[in-house]
Amino acid sequence: MKAPSLDHVAVAVESLEDTLPIIETLSRARAEEVADFPAHGVRVAFVGGVEVLQPTHPDSPVASFLAAHGPGLHHVALQVDDLELELDRLEREGFQRAEPEPRIGVHGRRLIFLHPRTTGGVIFELVERSTKAEG
Amino acid sequence: MKAPSLDHVAVAVESLEDTLPIIETLSRARAEEVADFPAHGVRVAFVGGVEVLQPTHPDSPVASFLAAHGPGLHHVALQVDDLELELDRLEREGFQRAEPEPRIGVHGRRLIFLHPRTTGGVIFELVERSTKAEG
Repeated sequence: MKAPSLDHVAVAVESLEDTLPIIETLSRARAEEVADFPAHGVRVAFVGGVEVLQPTHPDSPVASFLAAHGPGLHHVALQVDDLELELDRLEREGFQRAEPEPRIGVHGRRLIFLHPRTTGGVIFELVERSTKAEG
Repeated sequence: MKAPSLDHVAVAVESLEDTLPIIETLSRARAEEVADFPAHGVRVAFVGGVEVLQPTHPDSPVASFLAAHGPGLHHVALQVDDLELELDRLEREGFQRAEPEPRIGVHGRRLIFLHPRTTGGVIFELVERSTKAEG
């Protein structure tokens, strides 16, 4: 099983429409289609290795982050081969999950966030390398 | 010339000694040797795709960042094939550099920071893919 590796970094912003062109120019890449996650109050678009997050609800975690910190870097995602195995390992090491169970994110990939109080203050996401659609 | 791609993400912390073990456990990787940059008032160590920054001087930019924001994500580095070509392109697009000239960072790689007021608030670094030791 490969070690976790850097998958993407996420930025919280007030407006995808204002920010995506900036990241597109920086990375010479086109933004992917915007994905809407109403249950988490956030709209998301990937451009290059950067995920851009815009809150759609004032009670969403990203809206709270913006209120507390302003726009800027929000979290780092580490790519893992097997989400449950890495999560088990990290919980045995004292890390805590920030949500009850893994969920499905952009590109259908399974992910979970770790609680920043157990990671030195940085929000880390674990995201599985590929979907498990094949079983 | 390849498009810029995600190279690493950097975290600003009070103590490398306290933080490196956390990132090592998360990423199942050993931290590289600590590099000291007295001119920039910072000590740096890479572990996995994460760069950890600790200020060594209260007037350093990383110390100012910690005072303003607390520990957390500091910047994102995009890997480029040719630093001057990308910098020229971005300056023509309205981005501004945050320092007069490129400099040498960890692993002998050439880098420059962009001013966050021109990038939507995020500190972006451009870092060259390889050293130019051969000429």
